[in-house]
Amino acid sequence: MGAGDDAGVIKQSYGSYLLATTDSQVEGVHFLSQFTTPKDIGRKAVAVNASDIAAMGGIPTYCLVSLILQKTLQETYIDDLYDGIIEECKRYDIQIIGGNISKGRELVVDIFMLGQTTPSRLLLRKGAKPGDKILMTGSLGEAAAGLQLLLNPKLEIKAEDRKALLSRQFTPTPRLEEARIITSKHRATSMIDISDGLGADLGHICESSKVGARIYEEKIPVKQVVCEVAEKLKKNAWKLAINGGEDYELLFTAPESEVAGIISAVKQGSGTDVSVIGKILPEEEGKWMVLKDGKTVPLPEKGWDHLKM
Amino acid sequence: MGAGDDAGVIKQSYGSYLLATTDSQVEGVHFLSQFTTPKDIGRKAVAVNASDIAAMGGIPTYCLVSLILQKTLQETYIDDLYDGIIEECKRYDIQIIGGNISKGRELVVDIFMLGQTTPSRLLLRKGAKPGDKILMTGSLGEAAAGLQLLLNPKLEIKAEDRKALLSRQFTPTPRLEEARIITSKHRATSMIDISDGLGADLGHICESSKVGARIYEEKIPVKQVVCEVAEKLKKNAWKLAINGGEDYELLFTAPESEVAGIISAVKQGSGTDVSVIGKILPEEEGKWMVLKDGKTVPLPEKGWDHLKM
Repeated sequence: MGAGDDAGVIKQSYGSYLLATTDSQVEGVHFLSQFTTPKDIGRKAVAVNASDIAAMGGIPTYCLVSLILQKTLQETYIDDLYDGIIEECKRYDIQIIGGNISKGRELVVDIFMLGQTTPSRLLLRKGAKPGDKILMTGSLGEAAAGLQLLLNPKLEIKAEDRKALLSRQFTPTPRLEEARIITSKHRATSMIDISDGLGADLGHICESSKVGARIYEEKIPVKQVVCEVAEKLKKNAWKLAINGGEDYELLFTAPESEVAGIISAVKQGSGTDVSVIGKILPEEEGKWMVLKDGKTVPLPEKGWDHLKM
Repeated sequence: MGAGDDAGVIKQSYGSYLLATTDSQVEGVHFLSQFTTPKDIGRKAVAVNASDIAAMGGIPTYCLVSLILQKTLQETYIDDLYDGIIEECKRYDIQIIGGNISKGRELVVDIFMLGQTTPSRLLLRKGAKPGDKILMTGSLGEAAAGLQLLLNPKLEIKAEDRKALLSRQFTPTPRLEEARIITSKHRATSMIDISDGLGADLGHICESSKVGARIYEEKIPVKQVVCEVAEKLKKNAWKLAINGGEDYELLFTAPESEVAGIISAVKQGSGTDVSVIGKILPEEEGKWMVLKDGKTVPLPEKGWDHLKM
C-alpha cells in the first residue's frame, strides 16, 4: 500500500498484512548521552518502533538492529545498550532476527521492525471523516517535561514526580494493548501515534484523510505535574503538551456513535483513559485549536521536527 | 531461524520464507563524500543489501530507507541521493515501502531490505561439508583497487581501467541472477557474499559449518589491472584481493559432482565465470591458504573490519 503511514503495509497472499517500519535514535538529537543510560537508549529505540506498529493496529513480531558505534565506546556500554534492546523486545515478544554494526562518529540505534495485522484491524491515517470525534489515549506533555528537567537540573520538583517524568522521557511505553482494543471492531476510522507532537500528528491525519479539525485546549489531558514544570519555567503548559512530542500516545478518530464503547472498552481492557479532544471538520473549514479563554487559533503543527532543531 | 547469516529468515505459514537484512553506508567509513556522488551512495546502499538477499538464495522485494542527514546538506544533494536509491530499487524491482529521516552529524544511509525465497532455495552459511569444493563468482580486488585509486590520485593508469575499477568501488552489482542459478537445484551446500573480504567471509562459512578450508592463491581470480595497481603501489595483489572486501561476489561450496554443472549453468544463464578456488576440510585440519610459491599460510581472516579501520 506504499509508504507514508506509520509503517509500510504489504498484503500477503493468505490475507494477512505484514507491517514494516523503521525509526532511529541519534545521539544529540533523540537523546543526550550524558543524561541517558545505554540501556534506556536501547529500550526506547525498540519502544518507538513498536509504537508505530501499534498505531497501524498491528502486533510487532520481528526486528533487526542496525548500530553505528564510535570506536571509543566501552564494551560494557555496548553490552548495556544491547541489554536494553533485548529486554524491551522480550517485553513485547519481539524476536531479533539480524542486524549490522558499523563504525561512525556518533551513536545511532536504528531499528527495523516487522509486525502483522489482519485486513479488518489495519488502521491508516487516511480514514477520518468530517463529524468523527478526535480521541487520544493517556495524557500529553510528560515526555517534554522530563526533557525540561534534564535541561534545567536545578528546577525543584518532588522526587517521585521527577522520576515519573524522566521515565516517560527515557522509556516510553507503546500503547500496544490499547491499539488492539481500538482496532478490534472496526470502530475507529484513522490512527497515528503521537511522536512528533499532537498538532503535527493531527496534521498528518488531516493531510492523509483530506479533512480539517478542531480541538479544544481544555479537553487535552495534561497532568498537574506538567503544568507545575511549565509554570516554574515560565512556559506554556499546552505548548509543552502539544508541541513536545515523544509521548507515544495514540491519536485516533471514530464516529460519535462508537466513542462511548471505545472509551469503556479501552479502560476495561487496559486501564488506560481515553479522552475526546475535538472533532474532524470538512477540509475547507481548516485546522483549529480553541484555547481555554475562548480564542480560536490555527492548529500548531510545528511539532518536533528533527531537521529544524 | 535466528540471526547470524546474511539475512534473517522467517518461516511463513504457506511454506515461503521471508528474508530480512540491514546494511548501512556511513560517511567516512563506507564512502568519502569528496569522491563519491550522492547518487552512487544511494545506489550502493541498495545494492549491498540486495547482495545479502541474493546470498541467501532470495529475491529482494521491499525496502525501507532510514536516512541521517546533516542540517547543512543541500536539497539537491538529498534529491540525488534518493534518485540513486530509487534507480537501484527499480533495477531489481524492489518497492520502497517506508522510511525515516533524522538529523545527525554525519551522513548515514541505512537500508532495511526484505526478500523472499522458498525452502528448497534457501542457502545458509552452515551447510558446507568436508570434501566440498569452494567456488566463487567473478573476480576479486577490483573494488579495493578502485579505493586505492581514490586514495592515490596521482597513480597513472589507463582511463578505461580507472573507470572500471571506480565503478566496481562505487556501484557494485549484486549477483542476483547468479545466486538464483546456484540455488536452483539443491546443488550448493553453503553461500555468503564477499563483503568483508574472501578470507573473512570464508571464515564465516567455516565457523557456521564447523569445517576447515584450504584455498589456493593461484586459483583466485584476480584481473591483470588489479595486479598492475598493486604493483605500482608496492602492495601485494592477493592481499588487496583477499582482504579488500566490497567485491560482492558470491562465495559458495558444493560437492565435487555438482561443480561442472554449476559452472556451466551460471556461465550460460548469466555470462559470469565461476572459479574453483579450494576445498572444505574437516574442522580439525584448520584453515589455510597455499601461496603461489608453494608455501602454506593460515587463511588471512582479517578482512575489512569497520570497527578496526
